[in-house]
Amino acid sequence: MKAKELMDKDFVYLNADDSVVEVSKVMEEIRRFTCPVVNDDKQLIGWVTSFDITKGLREGNDKISEIMSGYEEIATVNENDPARKAVILTANNKFVTVPVLNDKKQVIGMVRACDIVELLSELYDIKVVKLYKAMQNQLNGVTWEELMDASALVSKKTTGKKISPEEYEANIMDSTFGEAIWATGGLEKFFAGLISVGELVVARRVGKARK
Amino acid sequence: MKAKELMDKDFVYLNADDSVVEVSKVMEEIRRFTCPVVNDDKQLIGWVTSFDITKGLREGNDKISEIMSGYEEIATVNENDPARKAVILTANNKFVTVPVLNDKKQVIGMVRACDIVELLSELYDIKVVKLYKAMQNQLNGVTWEELMDASALVSKKTTGKKISPEEYEANIMDSTFGEAIWATGGLEKFFAGLISVGELVVARRVGKARK
Repeated sequence: MKAKELMDKDFVYLNADDSVVEVSKVMEEIRRFTCPVVNDDKQLIGWVTSFDITKGLREGNDKISEIMSGYEEIATVNENDPARKAVILTANNKFVTVPVLNDKKQVIGMVRACDIVELLSELYDIKVVKLYKAMQNQLNGVTWEELMDASALVSKKTTGKKISPEEYEANIMDSTFGEAIWATGGLEKFFAGLISVGELVVARRVGKARK
Repeated sequence: MKAKELMDKDFVYLNADDSVVEVSKVMEEIRRFTCPVVNDDKQLIGWVTSFDITKGLREGNDKISEIMSGYEEIATVNENDPARKAVILTANNKFVTVPVLNDKKQVIGMVRACDIVELLSELYDIKVVKLYKAMQNQLNGVTWEELMDASALVSKKTTGKKISPEEYEANIMDSTFGEAIWATGGLEKFFAGLISVGELVVARRVGKARK
């Protein structure tokens, strides 16, 4: 995934000679805490946050050019950078927004922290049952019942608590990948559990075939 | 994981009779776009964003009480709510911050979008090689070479492109879980691929044991 696939195109360009008062109204209206400042070619030349605006209003500054940060102070990503770069910039610097530039240094979008949260939370909000369905699909000929039997056994071995295949099924119907990771203590452990289930199912099938 | 484990405790309480001008300076200094307003018992009674502040400065409001949103307009989570609740509120409403309350309705922390990004990106920034190590660990007695051989075979079957076990190993050393998910086309497909590798390794081992 590239930065341009994650960015929000719904933003407002500011010009260096825009009025601080007028910009403050626009930012309230569109509910954006940050805005890029561009030249006539839409190239990024500055950056304004609500903090610059409040200071500017207090101190009676007239133009955006008087309060903006300069280009060299702005962390940007290129539209073709991996989306991950914008995510890491946001996480490490506690940014709310990272501007996305094309090769001409024109601002074409903004990656917002809330959009990243939406993207990443979709990933971990997948129901665990879907992963089991993918596993069943992969392990040709394994029935859903065999899979649940094996899962209940592995779960008992791991947690020490007895659980029926039916209870196990009810659990994975409700729980998400994110919850499962937290419950098992991390991605590696969650994954090891799944492998363990797959291994047991295959071993049992081999056992049956030999009989 | 609970909301209280994800929240940021580094925030500033406002009082309803604080001065708008003074609060604007504090918010610039601590770099927070949102602040909770509390009563003498630290209970949440209002909410102020930079948008309220810029409007208040422009219109000459004196006290925070004149510009804040009221309690009923604020989305909150309880400290013992699942962290996921704050994540979903943030994703669905494009919030930058969600206040965390205890049972007495006192504000004890703030869940910030950038903190969620940090948490979720750590999850998907795990190197794929770690998952393979967990798989090897789980499949007792399987060697790393057997695992890479099987992975190269499965990869060839899935993508149609020939890849040596050494090239495969080099790929997973560099790539992260997040990249792998995007490359394979989703979490389910990624897991199906891994299960397929595990299945092949086990089948080959059984094959060898029979000889």
